[in-house]
Amino acid sequence: MEAPLSAATGTQTPRPAVPQPGTPAFVTAVEDALTSFFATRRPTTERLGTVFVEATDALEQFVLRGGKRTRPAFAWTGWLGAGGDPHAPEATAVLTACSALELVQACALIHDDIIDSSRTRRRFPTVHVDFEQRHRDRGWAGDSAHFGTSVAILVGDLALSWADDMVHASGLTPAAIARFAPVWADMRTEVLGGQLLDINGEAGGDESVEAALRINRYKTAAYTVERPLHLGAAIAAADQQLIEAYRRFGTAIGIAFQLRDDLLGVFGDPAVTGKPSGDDLREGKRTVLLAEALRRADETDTAAAALLRSSIGTDLSAEQVQRLRALLAELGAVDEVERRIAELTDSGLAAIEASSATPVAKERLRAMALAATKRAA
Amino acid sequence: MEAPLSAATGTQTPRPAVPQPGTPAFVTAVEDALTSFFATRRPTTERLGTVFVEATDALEQFVLRGGKRTRPAFAWTGWLGAGGDPHAPEATAVLTACSALELVQACALIHDDIIDSSRTRRRFPTVHVDFEQRHRDRGWAGDSAHFGTSVAILVGDLALSWADDMVHASGLTPAAIARFAPVWADMRTEVLGGQLLDINGEAGGDESVEAALRINRYKTAAYTVERPLHLGAAIAAADQQLIEAYRRFGTAIGIAFQLRDDLLGVFGDPAVTGKPSGDDLREGKRTVLLAEALRRADETDTAAAALLRSSIGTDLSAEQVQRLRALLAELGAVDEVERRIAELTDSGLAAIEASSATPVAKERLRAMALAATKRAA
Repeated sequence: MEAPLSAATGTQTPRPAVPQPGTPAFVTAVEDALTSFFATRRPTTERLGTVFVEATDALEQFVLRGGKRTRPAFAWTGWLGAGGDPHAPEATAVLTACSALELVQACALIHDDIIDSSRTRRRFPTVHVDFEQRHRDRGWAGDSAHFGTSVAILVGDLALSWADDMVHASGLTPAAIARFAPVWADMRTEVLGGQLLDINGEAGGDESVEAALRINRYKTAAYTVERPLHLGAAIAAADQQLIEAYRRFGTAIGIAFQLRDDLLGVFGDPAVTGKPSGDDLREGKRTVLLAEALRRADETDTAAAALLRSSIGTDLSAEQVQRLRALLAELGAVDEVERRIAELTDSGLAAIEASSATPVAKERLRAMALAATKRAA
Repeated sequence: MEAPLSAATGTQTPRPAVPQPGTPAFVTAVEDALTSFFATRRPTTERLGTVFVEATDALEQFVLRGGKRTRPAFAWTGWLGAGGDPHAPEATAVLTACSALELVQACALIHDDIIDSSRTRRRFPTVHVDFEQRHRDRGWAGDSAHFGTSVAILVGDLALSWADDMVHASGLTPAAIARFAPVWADMRTEVLGGQLLDINGEAGGDESVEAALRINRYKTAAYTVERPLHLGAAIAAADQQLIEAYRRFGTAIGIAFQLRDDLLGVFGDPAVTGKPSGDDLREGKRTVLLAEALRRADETDTAAAALLRSSIGTDLSAEQVQRLRALLAELGAVDEVERRIAELTDSGLAAIEASSATPVAKERLRAMALAATKRAA
């Protein structure tokens, strides 16, 4: 007679815990939650017809095409740190709600790619380019590019709607959802506000360090670290003190993360970052690094200021990129950004150390903070 | 000594009821709920900066610029018909949740106007055109039209996000929100699916009556009548039988509403509809009316079919419009659509008569059904 495995080893098999963030198994668990959610939508999408199935399949492939699942990892760690138990029965519901952040992110990326006129993402055509090509391949009527944009607007809207639906269908209690909702509201408003500030700043030519920092604060820090941690804390009904510590950590580490990204966008090794060297300079991205360099050049070296303004955002040669890099360093902007990263990282880590977060979560958040701010890619 | 009014008349002033749908006072009550919600967002938008305040002000003006508030009216009536009491303390929360439908609609219209390349709506510039003009007026860098589209994508996303936030902040109990959420999910998925079917059908040249009816079903009927009623019923915890009756009524009346709209788009009096005569013919809108005419022409009159295909969607003269109108009538398509409207209206009314909805709600829904299907504008 066969015995179940747990009996055979003479021990009770514990309920499998959700894996630790930062491991490939955690990424897989998030992707499994997303796959399961998409499966629940299938009857509705099929009722609407094959054209809609095609669009939702494109969304599913987009969402599952990779990514570090950073936001779910912070949200999950926020819950753990407030005393959440990964072996508890509600852990699956919590992971599902945390994974819904990837659908907000899908909307942000799909709509951002239209706004930035990006043709590829993660080496695949962006959603609007994909549907532009399908339109052209089928020899359909009308403007292919406009069709692609139209489909991508609607697919992004669907991702944003489904993010909510995934939270509601996660299995969280109505009380937990009621705690979750206002944080979720703030997060979405902040990221959309950050994007609006970004495109306005670019169009209006706001070169100030303050403007660049404010965009970092809302478009990246609040959305990527601060609010995900806060969401996890809200699910766990954490006290206000822990929430404040999470928010200080999240803001500091989130901004430092973006500052590191800005440095890598100019000085990163293409072999490691996967992007052409100096890409941010060619694109004319309005980073704190650039704003800091312009501020310094305006005070000390007007010829350098003129060079920066006339060359940033143009099709630069490798030599020009090299020259601009040297200039950013000579002006002291690189050191200043490194100083800010170090200061922000220290203050973020101090906030979390002094908090009531569980030791395991503290350790995990320390590791995530260092990975985000000291990375090479 | 002055006495309060209620004491002066010697009676107790009852709690003011939310006004009856169909009255100007109901429209005002919905707009007041929206204004109050926008006021609650103000601290967050101001924290993000003046650029974001400008964008959210544009959204608020867009939402408050008019409209019949049809969806809140159906949702509210669905709640009343399931026993909701307009004098009860929770009535304000219910009205607020119903009014949030206007923010979903704002997203749909703002994004639709991009998709349809519409320049005006309700005699004002559409959101993307408004921001295109602001960009141009300020002499900003980059492409003004692309900037306008980018802002309008984000403002639409904000409307969609805020629709949810308004429901969560309405004061509905967590249990009521849990009943509301799956219906809200279906409604949003259906309207986005309907829009995707619409643009695909147009690009792919699907001329079938079935395709046109399916788009009506999801883009209009489910979104405008069926799901709003269902949402009201869900708040009131209505039984399954009443929900089924609402859904049958909503589907039938919603499709009939769109069919009437299609007839008005071709035969309506410009002085009453406010749109140029025959506008749908010039735009080449793929209506059931046109699909029916093509189906009949293909069977009986291939010259008429060729004429329809070659002229619909072109810049028609008044004489050409007159000729196409006569053709649609001669082919029997107009009678067929009128027959469908009558049949759908009858079956919708029968479903509601046989239901357990309250007498007041039945009377109200009958009036709304007739107003939607027999109107001249």
